[in-house]
Amino acid sequence: MTSTGTGRAGVSITDDEIFQAHRDGKLTVELAAPIETKRDLSITYTPGVAQVSRAIAADPALVDRYTWTGRLVAVVSDGTAVLGLGDIGPRAALPVMEGKAALFRSFAGLNAIPIVLDTTDPDEIVETVIRLRPSFGAVNLEDISAPRCFQIEQQLIEALDCPVMHDDQHGTAIVVLAALKGALTLLDRSTFGLRVVISGAGAAGVACADILRAAGVGDLVVLDSQGILGPDRTGLIAHKVELAGWTNPRGLTGGLREALEGADVFIGVSGGTVPEEALAGMADDAVIFALSNPDPEVHPDVAARYAAVVATGRSDFPNQINNVLAFPGIFAGALDVDAARITEGMKLAAAEAIFEVARDDLTADHIVPLPLDTRVAPAVAQAVARAARAEGMARSD
Amino acid sequence: MTSTGTGRAGVSITDDEIFQAHRDGKLTVELAAPIETKRDLSITYTPGVAQVSRAIAADPALVDRYTWTGRLVAVVSDGTAVLGLGDIGPRAALPVMEGKAALFRSFAGLNAIPIVLDTTDPDEIVETVIRLRPSFGAVNLEDISAPRCFQIEQQLIEALDCPVMHDDQHGTAIVVLAALKGALTLLDRSTFGLRVVISGAGAAGVACADILRAAGVGDLVVLDSQGILGPDRTGLIAHKVELAGWTNPRGLTGGLREALEGADVFIGVSGGTVPEEALAGMADDAVIFALSNPDPEVHPDVAARYAAVVATGRSDFPNQINNVLAFPGIFAGALDVDAARITEGMKLAAAEAIFEVARDDLTADHIVPLPLDTRVAPAVAQAVARAARAEGMARSD
Repeated sequence: MTSTGTGRAGVSITDDEIFQAHRDGKLTVELAAPIETKRDLSITYTPGVAQVSRAIAADPALVDRYTWTGRLVAVVSDGTAVLGLGDIGPRAALPVMEGKAALFRSFAGLNAIPIVLDTTDPDEIVETVIRLRPSFGAVNLEDISAPRCFQIEQQLIEALDCPVMHDDQHGTAIVVLAALKGALTLLDRSTFGLRVVISGAGAAGVACADILRAAGVGDLVVLDSQGILGPDRTGLIAHKVELAGWTNPRGLTGGLREALEGADVFIGVSGGTVPEEALAGMADDAVIFALSNPDPEVHPDVAARYAAVVATGRSDFPNQINNVLAFPGIFAGALDVDAARITEGMKLAAAEAIFEVARDDLTADHIVPLPLDTRVAPAVAQAVARAARAEGMARSD
Repeated sequence: MTSTGTGRAGVSITDDEIFQAHRDGKLTVELAAPIETKRDLSITYTPGVAQVSRAIAADPALVDRYTWTGRLVAVVSDGTAVLGLGDIGPRAALPVMEGKAALFRSFAGLNAIPIVLDTTDPDEIVETVIRLRPSFGAVNLEDISAPRCFQIEQQLIEALDCPVMHDDQHGTAIVVLAALKGALTLLDRSTFGLRVVISGAGAAGVACADILRAAGVGDLVVLDSQGILGPDRTGLIAHKVELAGWTNPRGLTGGLREALEGADVFIGVSGGTVPEEALAGMADDAVIFALSNPDPEVHPDVAARYAAVVATGRSDFPNQINNVLAFPGIFAGALDVDAARITEGMKLAAAEAIFEVARDDLTADHIVPLPLDTRVAPAVAQAVARAARAEGMARSD
């Protein structure tokens, strides 16, 4: 029996134990109330249910009150960018989507069902989810490869009157912002004049850039595998052209070494590595988020030589940037007020709420709450609902 | 507060009570095991889940073992023929689909999720379900109007490598056959020479005709709202042309009166009525199944004047022909052996199993088991699995 990567955390978990835990799946559908008597059957099913169907036919808005859709998230994937495993297809993606659904239930009390699609065509994915719309109350897009994920998310947000969020983009970005707030507070710094470098221009990189801009970071430099995105780069695909257009205000060219010279913050979401000599050029009191999984862009022990605060995506080091801090509360808050969409303001509010939970006991090893901190999801949900109301996005209280 | 139709059963159920029971829906998604510790998270989600995803990527057949799909039925509807309410749309159909899913859980321990579609185009429905295929293990089509339902079911059976069944057709037909077996056994008759009249050439009527033919009934006459289907009828749509081709061996023409003259069995699945004087022409020891809901083709008290055995679709009269006797066990049996499809042999085996449960205490008021009889679903599942094995349809034991 071989042990898995989890062994590195000092927690010995065997393959057998993992496969046993996934046997027959990790989710079940249960009844809100049992059907044991003829009377139960008459209420839950025919003829009683006809009353409810008639009421919804007369007023479709009632569907969220008298069905499970008002608290139901569809976790939708085509399996093209699953964890660090890449394009492994919808069936192999399913255990991850079940896990995600389990986290929705566990942290936010939401119902969630995995929907894995046997197509990778963006138009077909969009079309399929639109046709499925009456089946659920919100859409968590998951593990869909870039740049397809941008188009799919955008089109679904425009087409559907319900919350839609690609978690690999925004879940990550929101927790990154929360952690950055923690680090800056600890270091007694503001975003004013802050130089931030993002390595990786995929789903997470783009969303991190967007949210950091919204949070007031003015000097952002983004790199893809070919180097810094800027006016000198040619042949870029659309979303990189856009990034190159508004980031990199000092017109840098080159690679990580040039980007990191004097930088305050490094955010790695690249799946690559960052050379130690590049990190050596960062400013004093630097912040390094090496978020690639399972192998961070730089080992946290090495990073600590050049930074005051280090975070990773891994559970076996301090400061784990884990999406689970964001998505359950975001969807719960959005569904609580029947928001038509998840706005930038709602995302910023979520990041602030996550940061606030960690704020009281900030240390260099605790700039974000632990993933299992049960205070987080309710705090995020409340903040998101409040932001939705403030922005006029709430369709119910 | 008004009382509903259920009041007719002497069981007083108020609208308030019904709406309260449907508040926030009738289903929840729950975790097979809790996520409470870092270790739980590492096993259920990352990094542990990657092991399971990798294994399925290497061998896609493992998906039914390590996800919930092996026991998951999608209850799919477009809301075009919901109960007796007609084309009320996918949202209004959802409470019924949730109820159906609840019955799958309650009677057969299966997971089931309602999928209601925002399209009524048969090709789009088929295409959508094909794209969703990796998300579940079987498809229960529900409340889709005829004749669209025939094409949709047929195309999905051909396209998918999993059980697909339109319950309004086959669930009804299977329980009708089971009840007919009960009635014939009670009356000490066989199907030999039996004259059966089916009023209604929609989903249920077609499936009843098919299964009765498979069960050995040679003299079947089917009527639609214009009268007996036969060679004299012109301008018929495809499925009625087919029915007219192989039923009505004596070449009858006319309406219910002509059809019922000397008939042994009347099966009403029409939503219409049958005049008393037509029933008067039936043979001695006749059997009348007046299955339209909520209003049977003839009141059972009236039917009893002309028949030895009477059944309806209603819970407030004896001999309720209720699909719930069939579908949970059929899907459970098919999924138990990973059957690629549900064959005629499996349907006949299901009917026989239902009949066998009722056999020991057959009376004119008990030709089928009660809907809540918990012996039925396991018996049906076992019989269906056995039939699947015998037909070489089982891909696992």
